[in-house]
This record gives sequence, C-alpha cells and structure tokens, in this order.
Amino acid sequence: MKHLLTMAGLADEEIMKLIEEARAFKSGKLPEPCLSPVFAANLFFEPSTRTRFSFEAAEKRLGMHVLNFQAEASSVLKGESLYDTVRTLEAIGANAAVIRHPQERFYEELADRVSIPIINAGDGCGQHPTQSLLDLMTIYEEFGRFEGLKISIHGDIRHSRVARSNAETLTRLGAEVLFSGPPEWQDDANPFGAYTPVDEAMEKSDAVMLLRIQHERHSSGMGGTAGYLEEYGLTRRRENRMKKDAIILHPAPINRGVEIDDSLVECSRSRIFKQMENGVYIRMAVLTRALTRNSEKKGENEHVLYS
Amino acid sequence: MKHLLTMAGLADEEIMKLIEEARAFKSGKLPEPCLSPVFAANLFFEPSTRTRFSFEAAEKRLGMHVLNFQAEASSVLKGESLYDTVRTLEAIGANAAVIRHPQERFYEELADRVSIPIINAGDGCGQHPTQSLLDLMTIYEEFGRFEGLKISIHGDIRHSRVARSNAETLTRLGAEVLFSGPPEWQDDANPFGAYTPVDEAMEKSDAVMLLRIQHERHSSGMGGTAGYLEEYGLTRRRENRMKKDAIILHPAPINRGVEIDDSLVECSRSRIFKQMENGVYIRMAVLTRALTRNSEKKGENEHVLYS
Amino acid sequence: MKHLLTMAGLADEEIMKLIEEARAFKSGKLPEPCLSPVFAANLFFEPSTRTRFSFEAAEKRLGMHVLNFQAEASSVLKGESLYDTVRTLEAIGANAAVIRHPQERFYEELADRVSIPIINAGDGCGQHPTQSLLDLMTIYEEFGRFEGLKISIHGDIRHSRVARSNAETLTRLGAEVLFSGPPEWQDDANPFGAYTPVDEAMEKSDAVMLLRIQHERHSSGMGGTAGYLEEYGLTRRRENRMKKDAIILHPAPINRGVEIDDSLVECSRSRIFKQMENGVYIRMAVLTRALTRNSEKKGENEHVLYS
Repeated sequence: MKHLLTMAGLADEEIMKLIEEARAFKSGKLPEPCLSPVFAANLFFEPSTRTRFSFEAAEKRLGMHVLNFQAEASSVLKGESLYDTVRTLEAIGANAAVIRHPQERFYEELADRVSIPIINAGDGCGQHPTQSLLDLMTIYEEFGRFEGLKISIHGDIRHSRVARSNAETLTRLGAEVLFSGPPEWQDDANPFGAYTPVDEAMEKSDAVMLLRIQHERHSSGMGGTAGYLEEYGLTRRRENRMKKDAIILHPAPINRGVEIDDSLVECSRSRIFKQMENGVYIRMAVLTRALTRNSEKKGENEHVLYS
Repeated sequence: MKHLLTMAGLADEEIMKLIEEARAFKSGKLPEPCLSPVFAANLFFEPSTRTRFSFEAAEKRLGMHVLNFQAEASSVLKGESLYDTVRTLEAIGANAAVIRHPQERFYEELADRVSIPIINAGDGCGQHPTQSLLDLMTIYEEFGRFEGLKISIHGDIRHSRVARSNAETLTRLGAEVLFSGPPEWQDDANPFGAYTPVDEAMEKSDAVMLLRIQHERHSSGMGGTAGYLEEYGLTRRRENRMKKDAIILHPAPINRGVEIDDSLVECSRSRIFKQMENGVYIRMAVLTRALTRNSEKKGENEHVLYS
Repeated sequence: MKHLLTMAGLADEEIMKLIEEARAFKSGKLPEPCLSPVFAANLFFEPSTRTRFSFEAAEKRLGMHVLNFQAEASSVLKGESLYDTVRTLEAIGANAAVIRHPQERFYEELADRVSIPIINAGDGCGQHPTQSLLDLMTIYEEFGRFEGLKISIHGDIRHSRVARSNAETLTRLGAEVLFSGPPEWQDDANPFGAYTPVDEAMEKSDAVMLLRIQHERHSSGMGGTAGYLEEYGLTRRRENRMKKDAIILHPAPINRGVEIDDSLVECSRSRIFKQMENGVYIRMAVLTRALTRNSEKKGENEHVLYS
C-alpha cells in the first residue's frame, strides 16, 4: 500500500524505516531533487495549525508545490463528495493528498478508487498516524529502543485519535503501556494498556504521554477542567517523582495548567516542542515513501522519486 | 488585448492557437524559464475548488509565484472597490490577475484602467472563458475538428456561464449546437442553438454537454431535483442510445444522480475528469498568452516571456 | 535586537540603512541566494490585503518559503496562546514570524522568549513599523532628505497606528510635523506635532499624509463620514493650494470621497500606489535585516544570510 491510513497498516520494519529516514532528514540528508513539478494537496476539513503547517513545511522542504484546500471556501459548499474532490485534485495534477476529516475512516471510500496516495492526517476520533510516528521517533531518539520501556498514556483514552493506535503500536514494538485518567474516559475496547492510578503510572514510566483535553469535541461532560490537573494531570509533585531519564510528551496544543503544570511545559524533561520539530521530518519520510512507492508501482526505477 | 474576458473577444485563430499551446504543454513542452520573479494574483470572490486550484497548478507549473486572495479575510471587508484592490496588487508586483466575481461584467471597470492582464475566471451568470476553452480542447482532442460536429447542451441554458459562450463559439467554429432542458430554463435571447427534446438531442450528438444544476444560484425554483434525471438528465438508457464515439462532458462539480446517472460519471464515454486535466494546460496557455502579449506591448522581444 | 517591533527601537542610522537597502532592491539588486530552505510564517489575526500580500511578495522575492497562518482556521480556536503558536511555528522550522494582532504590544510576551525574529505588522492601535518605513522611504525618494521638511498628518491621530510613530520618527529625523483633524481625534499624549487648521496645514506641507478613517475600529462615533471631506479631507480646492512639489500620502485602503476627493487618488501629486510598491522593497530590507542579524548572533559569517 502506498497510502498511509492507519498504524496497523504499517509493519514493524516499515515503522523503523520511516523513523530512520526521518532521522536522516533531520541530520541534513537532502531530498532527491524533483525533476518535474510535484504537487501535494492538503485537504483540512477541521481546524489545524501544527499538523497542516508541519505537512506544508515537509512538502516544501521536499521541493513540492502545495495546494492548500480550505473546506470552508470550496466546492464542498456545493455538496461535492470527498471522493469527487480527491479525484478532481488528482485530475488537476496532485501527486499526493493529505487529508484531515471529521468522519472516522473517511479514507475507506477513497483507498481503492483513487490512484494517488492518501495520507491520513487525522480521521475524527480515529487515527492520526503521522502523530503516532513522530511520538515513536521522539521516544526512539531518546532511548534507542522500544523493548522494555514503560509508556503511560494519560487522559481521554476513549476519544483520542492517538491513544488507541499508539498503545497498539508500542505494544507490538515491545513496550509496555499503562493508561490513566478519568474513569468515564476509559476505553474498555482498547486491550493494549493496563489502567493504573496516575501517581503510580507517572512514577513507573520512561515516557509520560499526556493527551489533550479536546474541549471542541466535548461540548458537555467533565463540567470544565477545574481540578483536572490535581486529579489526573502532570503536577510539579508528580514530575518530581518521575524516573531520572523519563521524558514528557504531549501532542499539543497544550492546555497549560490542565493536562500539565504551566511551569513544566518547557522543563528539561519536556520533549513537546521537539515532537513538533520531529513531525516535519517524519512527514518528509512519509511523503517520500508515498511517492516512491507510487513510482515503483508504475514500474519506474526506485531512485526516481517522483514522476 | 492581453486580457481574457469573453470568448467573443477571441478570434478563431486565437482559440486554435490556445488549444495547440495547451496540447503542447500536455505533451511535455516546458515553459520558458522565468528570469525574474513573476507573480499571479488569484482573486476569488466566490467559492471554488477546481477553477482556483487549476489556475494555481498552471501558475506553479509555469514557475510563477502565487498570491491567493481570499475575499473573506481581506480588506474587501473594509469596503475597498475591486479597482482599488487590483491596483494594489499591481503595485505590490502582481503580473497578472485571475478573478472570479459574482457581478456580471465585473471586468468592465478594470479593463482599460489597470496595466496588468485580467483573466476572467467566471463573472456571475456571465462567462467563464477558460472553462469554454477546456471544453473546446477536450472536444478537439477527441475529433480533431469542430466542423460538422453536433454538440448538445443540457440543463439550465438561461443561467449558465458556459452555455451561452460555448454555443456561440462552437457555432462559429463550425459545429451545430442543440439545446435541451426544462422549459423555464430556456434562453430565448440565445440564438446559437435549436431546442430539441432530450432523447433526440442525446441520440444525435457527438458530444453531450451537461450543465450543472446550480443549487447555490437557485435557492428557490425547480422545487428540488427529484425527477430531473429521468426527465432531462443522462440516464443509462439514453447513454445506451448515444452514437458510437460520442462523448460526455460536464463542467463539475457533478450532482450525481441528478444531471447524470451515478454509474456513468466515470464510464468510457465520460471525459469529465479529462476536462479537469485539460483545464490546467489551457490555463497555462492562457497565462502565457497574457504575459507574452504584455511584454510585446512594452516593446520587448517576443521570446522574453515575462518582465 | 533582531526583531522589528517599534520605530522607537530603530536608531536613525538603522532607518537610513533600511531605506537604502530597500532602494537597492528596487533598483534591481538581487537577494543573496538561500542555500537551504528559509521559511517565513505570516500570522494575521486581523483582516489585511496589502500588508499580508506585500510581506508575502517580499518573502517570495527573497526566495523564502511562506506559511500563511489564518487565525480563523487554526488552533487558535482551540484556545492556544500566541506564545505557544509562535513556539510551534519555530519548532516546525519558521525562520521569522510576521505578526498582525489586535492586541497592542502583543510582542511583549514574545520578544525575549522566542529565538526567531518577530516583525510587527500592526499591533492594534499601536504601531505598524513597516508602514512607517515605507512612508519614510517614499518621502526620502522624493526629497532626498528629511531635514527642514514640513509633513502634515490628517485624521484620526488618536487611534492611528502610524500617526504616533511617524510623527516621532519624522521629528527625530529633522522634519517638522503638523497634525490636523476632528478635535475628538486629537491626541494630547502625542507631543510630536502641532495642531493646525486643515487649510493652513495642507498649504504649508511638503507631504500631506492622510490617515484612513477606520470604520472597523469606530463602530460608533463620528456619526458617519458625510461632510468629512469638506471639513477635514483633501478637496480639489485644498490640493490646488498645495506647494508646487508637495506630495500626497495615504496608507490605504482609501475611502474615496472621504479622506480624499475621488479624482485626486491618482493625480500627479499622489504617491499612494508608489507607497504600496515601496512597501515590498522595505519589507525585503526588513526581512533581510532580521535574518542576517539572527545569523550573526549565532556567530556565523555576516555574508551567510540565512541558516
């Protein structure tokens, strides 16, 4: 498959290859020059700063042209289906489509019917594979392995795009996953982590992975965020009891003082902004994989990156 | 004239030259390299996916820089006139302006007063010359001629940007035009086609050109689209009776199951996505013409594409 | 300081150096080639046409990649602070941030905490230093000096981003500043100009600088603009009595028939569209300064423009 739709669709070796490729870009590896124009279409049907800009920066670093689709200002208003929109972009010359869409598994209506790679940039409460990959890259950069690590995931396990696929992927890569957070956000359908009280989970972890409280998805429920930090978040007291080399991860945007104490956002354990930096390199690797595979399929030389 | 405002403003030879130039780009002809930065300003005062992206792709393939003007987020909110907006973009360094605007003949207040070429990307219920040109290119690619062809145009002849100018242009290029559709959408002011019952029109045509039902322009009227397909659209039964080599055209976005049976959108007769592909090359040709003419006017060598 | 936050933060020599650099770009000086990708992030939290496009054109002329941040479609909706947004863009690889924000002195929470240069593109009723610089460049281009010039500023002195800093800067560069306009818009806290009746002010000036009536900032007050032109604006009668070589400036967008008679907008004295043209070159100079300084700070060779 040339698409990137779910973490489950990536074999262990593929994950490691993407991480290595991203690290090579980070170390200054130059992308193959594009011999003819290559276009990426970014289709964001939900607001996003970091994911969209991260993809855009990755695309431009790879020498691609970028078409930024804004759901509000487009023919979607005229009732066009996602399939017809993507086929249109393909006809116009897009070589890859990066899509965020509120509908879970939006890609199912596309995957076998379009001939350009689809990169899932978040499907509702479903997955967000490039976010998972950048989390993995950041952990791997730190520890050089996944085997034997303890990773705790804190917050709304149930509605998180990332919690489910991260837990599954970390487990199969050899890490042990702990879950923690409010009981109403537990996800009994997710077998890849053991629920653990927050103090214990944070004390035992090599990486504390905080999830964002998604106000925009929970218009009601929880009754606000007052008290969340003390009860379920990363306080200074809890940080103080973390293991010596343990690190802090958060997908951002951060609710300062809710998931994490304001003073810890940029503390020495925090890899939060490093995650964002790594995201650009992971997306360069993902786009390179998507476009290279596509060329291979057309029977071209593997070294010709784009057609 | 360096502008592209209406199809009537293009002589027959100019149309054929644009089609040939577009086909050359499609066959891989490389654009002249830009020796200094060239900027296109895209001003869309109405929603659009395919037209805006098609122009943007064409501009980037030509090596131009693109400034995307979004009517919502701009000084238009501060009440600035279209003329002042375009003069501003000219002062900022735009070498051409591509404009879609809901007001018919918006370009009349601009054409003699600005010194950069204006390309009409749709003026209300008026014209959409690059859409007409890509329709013509697609027909010409298929048949190698216009003389003696029968082209039927189906739908809202009265309010269609494209119906009027396509009918006129096809007629003067030697084709015969038939119109078909609901009586309330007939356009008695359009003398370039003969109204014909839908079955007969589709059976006789070399190209069946479906118009889009523009819900966003008809908030009332028609009372919905139920029954439209059976009465006026391209059903499987009608497709079955089309001439052996006859083709299907639609400007998109398509209302599947309204103008055309869902299963026919990508059938072997359909040139719908090919039209979109051709649109990029036509726009490359149109932009090249606009910018070359501009340079000529300034007394520069014809081979220097941009200043 | 590598940032550009206020005019007061620029020494006289720095202002003159920026003007000379802008004039060099205008005369065709080519920017240093970027050896690796350089990204500018444009963050506009208020509508803007000319300032945003002017920066974008400047960035692209310098060979930079551009990330256009739209406040409406972004994570700001998710409640992220400006600081976190800028830190995110920095992590993603932005080498400079151009920011317009409704909050006065928005940059104070950023200046010492981020490691990329911040360029103030307008802070509420505060400053707009690149607008000031392009005004200065346009005056200097005309007269070759500031010493001994009389410049009158007309309109809403009190709420104008530009009036305050222009008056201060012109005064320290040796010009004499006059203010004129409705009494309710006088700014007693601004000591850099003498209030003068409109007829006298216009008659005496070498440059008449009109301010825009900002409807969007004065939802009430003034009770409309009827009568403003006659009482406080630049009428044909007043233009007729201006000094022989005196010029007209306006930051635009223009309210034709309010601040200035419609027929004077493009008269021979008007430098209004020239100001916009100069704006691109000033912004090229400002961005070059920002990025060069940044490299110096890192101990790199001064001739290596970007890292």
